[in-house]
Amino acid sequence: MEDINLHFNGDFHAITASHNLLASLIDNHLHWGNAAGLDPRRITWRRVLDINDRALRHTLVGLGGTAHGIPRESGFDITVASELMAILCLAEGLEDLQRRIGRIIIGWRRDGSPVTVDELGFSGALTVLLKEALQPNLVQSLEHNPVFIHGGPFANIAHGCNSLSATRAALALNDVVVTEAGFGADLGAEKFLDIKCRQSGLRPDAVVLVCTVRALKLQGGADRNALQRPDLQALRAGMVNLERHLDNLERFGFSPVVCINRFPQDGADELALIHALAMERGVRSATAEHWARGGEGALELAAAVVEQLQEGSPGVRLLYPDDCPLEEKIVTLATTLYGAAGVSYSAEAKRQLAMFGQLGFSALPVCIAKTQYSFSADPKLLGAPSGHTLPVREVRLAAGAGFVVVVCGDIMTMPGLPRHPSALDIGLDAQGRVSGLV
Amino acid sequence: MEDINLHFNGDFHAITASHNLLASLIDNHLHWGNAAGLDPRRITWRRVLDINDRALRHTLVGLGGTAHGIPRESGFDITVASELMAILCLAEGLEDLQRRIGRIIIGWRRDGSPVTVDELGFSGALTVLLKEALQPNLVQSLEHNPVFIHGGPFANIAHGCNSLSATRAALALNDVVVTEAGFGADLGAEKFLDIKCRQSGLRPDAVVLVCTVRALKLQGGADRNALQRPDLQALRAGMVNLERHLDNLERFGFSPVVCINRFPQDGADELALIHALAMERGVRSATAEHWARGGEGALELAAAVVEQLQEGSPGVRLLYPDDCPLEEKIVTLATTLYGAAGVSYSAEAKRQLAMFGQLGFSALPVCIAKTQYSFSADPKLLGAPSGHTLPVREVRLAAGAGFVVVVCGDIMTMPGLPRHPSALDIGLDAQGRVSGLV
Amino acid sequence: MEDINLHFNGDFHAITASHNLLASLIDNHLHWGNAAGLDPRRITWRRVLDINDRALRHTLVGLGGTAHGIPRESGFDITVASELMAILCLAEGLEDLQRRIGRIIIGWRRDGSPVTVDELGFSGALTVLLKEALQPNLVQSLEHNPVFIHGGPFANIAHGCNSLSATRAALALNDVVVTEAGFGADLGAEKFLDIKCRQSGLRPDAVVLVCTVRALKLQGGADRNALQRPDLQALRAGMVNLERHLDNLERFGFSPVVCINRFPQDGADELALIHALAMERGVRSATAEHWARGGEGALELAAAVVEQLQEGSPGVRLLYPDDCPLEEKIVTLATTLYGAAGVSYSAEAKRQLAMFGQLGFSALPVCIAKTQYSFSADPKLLGAPSGHTLPVREVRLAAGAGFVVVVCGDIMTMPGLPRHPSALDIGLDAQGRVSGLV
Amino acid sequence: MEDINLHFNGDFHAITASHNLLASLIDNHLHWGNAAGLDPRRITWRRVLDINDRALRHTLVGLGGTAHGIPRESGFDITVASELMAILCLAEGLEDLQRRIGRIIIGWRRDGSPVTVDELGFSGALTVLLKEALQPNLVQSLEHNPVFIHGGPFANIAHGCNSLSATRAALALNDVVVTEAGFGADLGAEKFLDIKCRQSGLRPDAVVLVCTVRALKLQGGADRNALQRPDLQALRAGMVNLERHLDNLERFGFSPVVCINRFPQDGADELALIHALAMERGVRSATAEHWARGGEGALELAAAVVEQLQEGSPGVRLLYPDDCPLEEKIVTLATTLYGAAGVSYSAEAKRQLAMFGQLGFSALPVCIAKTQYSFSADPKLLGAPSGHTLPVREVRLAAGAGFVVVVCGDIMTMPGLPRHPSALDIGLDAQGRVSGLV
Repeated sequence: MEDINLHFNGDFHAITASHNLLASLIDNHLHWGNAAGLDPRRITWRRVLDINDRALRHTLVGLGGTAHGIPRESGFDITVASELMAILCLAEGLEDLQRRIGRIIIGWRRDGSPVTVDELGFSGALTVLLKEALQPNLVQSLEHNPVFIHGGPFANIAHGCNSLSATRAALALNDVVVTEAGFGADLGAEKFLDIKCRQSGLRPDAVVLVCTVRALKLQGGADRNALQRPDLQALRAGMVNLERHLDNLERFGFSPVVCINRFPQDGADELALIHALAMERGVRSATAEHWARGGEGALELAAAVVEQLQEGSPGVRLLYPDDCPLEEKIVTLATTLYGAAGVSYSAEAKRQLAMFGQLGFSALPVCIAKTQYSFSADPKLLGAPSGHTLPVREVRLAAGAGFVVVVCGDIMTMPGLPRHPSALDIGLDAQGRVSGLV
Repeated sequence: MEDINLHFNGDFHAITASHNLLASLIDNHLHWGNAAGLDPRRITWRRVLDINDRALRHTLVGLGGTAHGIPRESGFDITVASELMAILCLAEGLEDLQRRIGRIIIGWRRDGSPVTVDELGFSGALTVLLKEALQPNLVQSLEHNPVFIHGGPFANIAHGCNSLSATRAALALNDVVVTEAGFGADLGAEKFLDIKCRQSGLRPDAVVLVCTVRALKLQGGADRNALQRPDLQALRAGMVNLERHLDNLERFGFSPVVCINRFPQDGADELALIHALAMERGVRSATAEHWARGGEGALELAAAVVEQLQEGSPGVRLLYPDDCPLEEKIVTLATTLYGAAGVSYSAEAKRQLAMFGQLGFSALPVCIAKTQYSFSADPKLLGAPSGHTLPVREVRLAAGAGFVVVVCGDIMTMPGLPRHPSALDIGLDAQGRVSGLV
Repeated sequence: MEDINLHFNGDFHAITASHNLLASLIDNHLHWGNAAGLDPRRITWRRVLDINDRALRHTLVGLGGTAHGIPRESGFDITVASELMAILCLAEGLEDLQRRIGRIIIGWRRDGSPVTVDELGFSGALTVLLKEALQPNLVQSLEHNPVFIHGGPFANIAHGCNSLSATRAALALNDVVVTEAGFGADLGAEKFLDIKCRQSGLRPDAVVLVCTVRALKLQGGADRNALQRPDLQALRAGMVNLERHLDNLERFGFSPVVCINRFPQDGADELALIHALAMERGVRSATAEHWARGGEGALELAAAVVEQLQEGSPGVRLLYPDDCPLEEKIVTLATTLYGAAGVSYSAEAKRQLAMFGQLGFSALPVCIAKTQYSFSADPKLLGAPSGHTLPVREVRLAAGAGFVVVVCGDIMTMPGLPRHPSALDIGLDAQGRVSGLV
Repeated sequence: MEDINLHFNGDFHAITASHNLLASLIDNHLHWGNAAGLDPRRITWRRVLDINDRALRHTLVGLGGTAHGIPRESGFDITVASELMAILCLAEGLEDLQRRIGRIIIGWRRDGSPVTVDELGFSGALTVLLKEALQPNLVQSLEHNPVFIHGGPFANIAHGCNSLSATRAALALNDVVVTEAGFGADLGAEKFLDIKCRQSGLRPDAVVLVCTVRALKLQGGADRNALQRPDLQALRAGMVNLERHLDNLERFGFSPVVCINRFPQDGADELALIHALAMERGVRSATAEHWARGGEGALELAAAVVEQLQEGSPGVRLLYPDDCPLEEKIVTLATTLYGAAGVSYSAEAKRQLAMFGQLGFSALPVCIAKTQYSFSADPKLLGAPSGHTLPVREVRLAAGAGFVVVVCGDIMTMPGLPRHPSALDIGLDAQGRVSGLV
C-alpha cells in the first residue's frame, strides 16, 4: 500500500515533469521574444505538483528583472488535474499520445486565437517524458488477483477513470474486466460512457451500481452523525436517489446490477428494503462484503454480474450525438440525468462556448465539473431533486484530452493541507517500515 | 543513456517531492496561525523542480486572499540544489537521514532564532518519501562493468560528489573503487576530502588528477577557439595551473597520479611536456584514451594507479581542524589552495558568519561556492594567480547537510533554457526510440 | 473651469495625502512588529490617487525583503472613493472630523475583531492634513452667483452629495439654498435624505425632480442612438419611470417639483406630455433652459420652487428608523423604492451583515451601491420594473463615515483610461492657456 | 511653518499628480496594445508620493487579469525624487518646461532604444498640471524679509537646489540674492555650479562656505556624542576638511567667505582657530548667530559678503567642458574634488555609460549621487581622504532634467517611517492649532 501511495512506479512524477517542462518552455518562449505572439495574461497552462499546497494556487512568476522571464500571474494544480493525465488515460498509443499533446491549447493571443503545443514545437519532448508512464501497471490484490492501477484523471475537472491502455490490456488478458468510475453515477458512469467509451469505441456489457445504506439514509434526510442508527424511514426516503441513478443507467440501455456495499452496522431489514426495490424494478441486486471478508464476500455480487452478462450485450446508447452544439449537450445532461429544469450561463461561459464553437470544437463531448453530493450543483439538494437550474460558471477547453470542461460552481484544482496534516503522524518505525499512512 | 537521463529510477523525483512537501508544510504552518513564530520574509526553504525554469527563480506565493496562505516572496531551485540532495549523499543510513533532515533550518524568527524541521515535526514524513531513494543504484557500463550512479548534489553550492551509501556499497563489493569529484581539484577534491571524507571517516588511498592539453593551453592564455592548434608555448605557460593543483593535493598528503585525458588532436610533444613535468615533480603520470578506446584505453592509467596504491596509504591531512572559526577555515582555503592574499566579506556575510558562530555551527566544514574556471573568484584570472582577494558575498547554513556554504560571486541555482531549447529537437522516432538527446 | 478641474484649491490632494499617510502608517505598524495583531490579508484600507489608473487596482506592496515592509495584496482607488472624502462631507467640524477618522476600521485581526485608527493612534495627524480642506470653497457662477463647491464622495460607493459644512455655510448666508444629489432619485435623493439629512438633522423644504425627454424615451424602450427623434410612444411608455420616482419622493413626504431639463431637439408635444402627467398627479412642473439661456432660462423653475416653498415645510419621513436591523433597512429600500420582490445575499454578504450587527453597527444607515441606470441592479431592466430580486454581493463597513455600504453588482472604484485618453489632446496654447479640456 | 510643511501651496501635489498621470498613461499605453513597443520590464518611470512609505518601494502593478493592465514590477519614490521636480527647478519657462518633459525617457524597448514622453504624446497634459507650480512662491521670514521657497529636487539623486524661476525672479527684484545649496560643498556647490549655473548661464558673484565647530570636530575624529565638549585637537585635525572645501571652491575661481554657524557651546578659542585658518589662506570669515539672534546675528557675515562682492565678479570656471565623455567628467570630479585615486565601474554602469554616450547624451553634465558625510563614497572616511576609489554602481539618464545621475553606493529614493512615527505625536490642540510638528 505504501509503495502505491508513495511514488508508485513514477507515472505521476513523469506527468509532473512533462507538464512543468511545457510550462518552462512556454515561459522560455516569452523570454526570448514571444515569436508566437502569446498574450502572457491569457496563458492557461499552469504548473502542477503532486502535493497539496494551497500557497501555490495563485502565484506570480517571472519576477526579478529582465534576466528572469516575463512577470505574469499563474499558479499550480495537483498533478492529477493536469490535462496530460487525462490525455495519458485516453491515448490509444504513443502516436496518439503525441498527437493529443500537440493539440493542447496552452494559451491565447490578444486577437483571441489559440496557441497549441504543436505550434510551439514541443510535443516530441513532452511525449518522450511520458513514454514509460503510458505503459499500464500490473499489481496484485491481497488475494493475488491481477489488478491494473494506471492513471488518475482528477474527477473534479476531468473524466475520472483509469487509462484506456490498462483497460485494453486487461481485456486482452481476461474473461471479465471490471473498471471503476468514481463519484455518483451521474458523474462517474456518465463520463466513463460519454467520454472514454465514446472516444475509444469500447462498450461495457454490464453495469454495477454500488450503493450503501448509509449514503441512502443521508440522501433521505438523516443526520450525518447518526447514519449508523437504524432508520428505515430515512432509507425509504433516500431510495429516490437510487431510483434516479437506475433511471439514468437505463437511459444508456443497461439493466444495472445493484450492489449494496455492506457496512457492519447495516440492518437486515435495511438491506431487504433495497433488494425489494431492485426486485420491484426488475433488476438484479446483491449484498457485497468484500471489505470484511475478501473475495468470498463478493461471490454473491459476482454471480449476479455473471448472470447479467449471460443475458448478452445491451445496445449501449450514448446520451447525445457528437454533432450537436455544446449547449445542447449540457442541456441534455442537465435535464435528463440531473432533473434540472434548465441551464444558466455566466457571461463568461457564454462567451467561451460561442468561441469554442467557432473554433470548431463543437463535436467534443462535455465533461461536467459539479459536486458529487447532489444531482444538482448544490451539495445540499439531496434525494432526487428536480426543477432546479444548472449554473454554468466557466467553460474550459481540453483540446488534447478531447473534451470541454463545464464548470458548475466552485471547483478546487489544488487542495490545501489541514491544520494537522498527516505528515505530522507519518514516519518510519524501528524496523524502517512506514507508519502513520492511512 | 536515455533511461538514466530521463527519470532514471525516480530518485530525483523523490527528492523533489520530499523537498516540496516540506515547503507546503511550512506554508501550511503559516496559514494555520504560525505557532512557531516564523518570519515569513525570512523563510529560506524554497521549492525545487528538476527542470530549468528561469521564470520560477523569483516568485510570489500565497496570493489570492485569506483562503490561500500567506503572501510571501520565494522561488524555485533545481532539484540537485536541494539541501535534501546533499543530505541524501552524506547520510549513513535511514536514521542518520532523518536526523539530518530534522536539523535543517528552514527559516528564522524576527528575533534571529532559527526554526528547524524537527521543531515543526516533519522529519518522519520527509524521510519516508526518501527511503527508497537512499538505496544506491547499480548500473553497468557499456563494457559491463559495475557502476554506481547515485545522488548529484549541485557542485555550484554543495559538495558535488556521489552518495556515501553508494561509496560504502562499492567498497564492500570491490577491490578498487574510483569516485569522481567534479570541477577543478581546488573545488571537487577539496570538498570531497574536507566534507565527505571528514564527515564519514573514509580516506582515499590515492588521487588521480585529470587534465587535458586543451585546458592547460587555455590556462596558459591560448584563444578558446584555437585550442585544437599545437601551441607548446601556451601549454608551457598553462602548466603552472597543473602545478598549483599538484601542490594543493600534496598539501593533503597525496602523491597524485596525473592523468592526461587525451583528445584526438593532442600532439605527442604536448603530451610529452606534461609527462616531463610529472617526472620532474616525482609523481606518476599516464595518458588515457578511454573515450576513444574504452577500457583498453585506460590500461596505462590503471597500471599507474595500482602502482601508486601499492605504495600504501598516505597519511591524509584535512586542511583545517573542525574546531576553528569559520572565517579561519575560509582564509585557510583561500590563502593556500587559491593563492589569495586574503578574504573580503560583505556586511551581510560578516553578520551571517557571526550569527552562525553564535548559534554553535563553527565546527562545520565550509563549502566554497565559486567559479570553477579560476583558482580565484574571477573566471578570467587564469593560470595560478596569487595576491588576489576572495570576495565572500553571502553565507548560507546547511545545518542538515552539515556544512556552511560560502558564496563568492554570482551563483546560479536555477538555470534557464536557451533560445533554442533541446526540447525542440527531442522526440520519438518511428520505432518509438528517443532521438535528439545529446 | 480648468482651475476647478485641475488641482482646484487642493482639497482632493489633501485627502489623497491624508489617506495615503494612513496607509503608510499601517504598513509601518506591520513592519515594526504589528503590535496590534492585524492580519495583513485582512487590511481593508487601500491607497488612493486622484488619477484613473487601472494598473493600480490590484497591486502587491511590501516586496523586496525584510527592509521593505510586509508583502501583501492591496490596491488603489480614486480619491473620491476614500472614506475620508465621505467623512469630510459629513463632519460637523474639526472635532467631529477627528472623531470620525478615529472610528475608521482599517482592517481585522485573525479572530475577526476590527482595528480602528484610534487604536493605532493616528487620528490627530490625519486630521491635521485635512484642517484646511474642511473649510468650504466659495466660487461664483458665470453670472456671478455664489456657489459652494466642496467635497465629492463617489456616488458609486458613498452617499454622493456635497459637504455638510458647505451646506451649513450656505444656509447661514442665503434665503434659498439648492443642493444637488446625483444619479437617479432612488440613489441620490435617497442617500441625501437617509444619510446626510439623517446624520445632520437638516431637512429640505422642497424637492426638485429633474428629468429629460431623452432619458424618459430611453426608459420607454427607444433606441439609444435615436433619442433625438420625436417618439411620443416611447416617451409615454418611459413615464412610468418618472411616476415611480414621484411615488418614491412622496413616500418621503414631499410634493416634488418636476423640472424638465430641455434639450434643443425636444418637441413641444413631448414637453406637454410630461407637464400633463405632473398636472394629473397634482405636482408642479417647469421647463428649464438654463443650459442654453443661463439664469433667465431657469426663471420658470425658480417660480415653481418658490411657490412650492410657500406651501410650508412638509413633514419629512425617513424611510426606516435607525434602530432596525441592517437587513431590514435593505429590504425596505429594495421593496419600496426599487420595486423588488426581495433581496438575495451572497454567503459573504450574509456573514458580513451578521458580523457588523454583532459589533454594534446595526444603527447605521445603509448606503446602496448599485447601477444608476435602473431601479433594479440590472442596468438593462428599464422603466419601472417590479418582482425582481436585489442581489447583495458584498457589504462594507464605513464606520467613520457612519454608514454601511451595500454592494449590489460590480462596482468600480478605480476607473481606467480609454484607448485614446484625453491627455493626448490637452495642452497649452501659444498664450499659455489650457486647451483640450472638455 | 505648518502651512509650508503641510501642503504649502500645492506645488508638490501638482508634481505628484503630473508624475503619476504619466505613469498611468504609460500603463494605459501597454494595456491598449503597446504600439510603442515598450518592454514592460524596462520601464524606468516609477510612481511618486509625498509620503515616506517603504512598503511602496517595490511593488507589482497591473495584476488581476486582462481587464487590469499588464503585470510588471515597479515602485514608488518620494515626490522630490521625481525627474519632474528637477525639471521644474531647471526650466526657463512654460515652453522649456514642456520641451524638457517631452524629452524624458520613460523606458526602453527590447532593442535598447529609448521611449520618450514626446513619442507617446503626453507632454502637453503633463505641463498643464504644472503650469501654476512653475510660478515661484514668495513668503516672508519671521523678520518680514522676502524669501522664495520654490522646488526641492532630492539632493540624494538630483541637483538639490531651488528653482531657476525663483532665482531669476529674486534677481530681478533685489540687489543681493542668496541661494542655498545643500549637503557638503563637494555636492551642493558643485551641482549648483556644474548643473544649474551651467544650464542657465547664471554665475554667482561670491560663495559663502558654511561650517560649524561641531562638524569639523567630527571630521577630526571626535566622538559624535561628545561634540559639545571643547576639543581643540579634534577641531584642528578636522580643519583639513574645511581646507579641502576651500581648495575646491577656489578651483571654481572663487575666494570663498567662511561662515561659522555658531552653536551656543562653541568656545571662543575654537572659533578663533577657524578664523585664523581663513586669515592664513587669505579668505574672509565671519561668525554668524542668526539662529539665536535673528538678522542682527548675521550682520558680520553680511558685511563680509558685501566686501567680497565689492571685489567684483570672479571668473567662474566650471570643472569640465560640456563636450567631454561622461567618464571623463566623473573622473574629473572624483580626482579633484573628492581626492580619489580613480573610479571603478560596475559592469552595469559601464554598459549604461556606453549606451548613453552612443545615444548622444555625452554632452550632459553628471550629477553625482553619493554620501554627504565624506568626500569619498564611504561615510566613515572623514577628514580629507585621498587615494580612495569612487565606486560607480549605476548610471541613470535624466534626459528631461538634462543630467546623468551617477550612483555611488546605496541611494534611498523612498524613505521609511521610524518605529515611532511623528504622526503619533501630531494633532490639533483645543484651539485647532497644529501641535507636534518639529
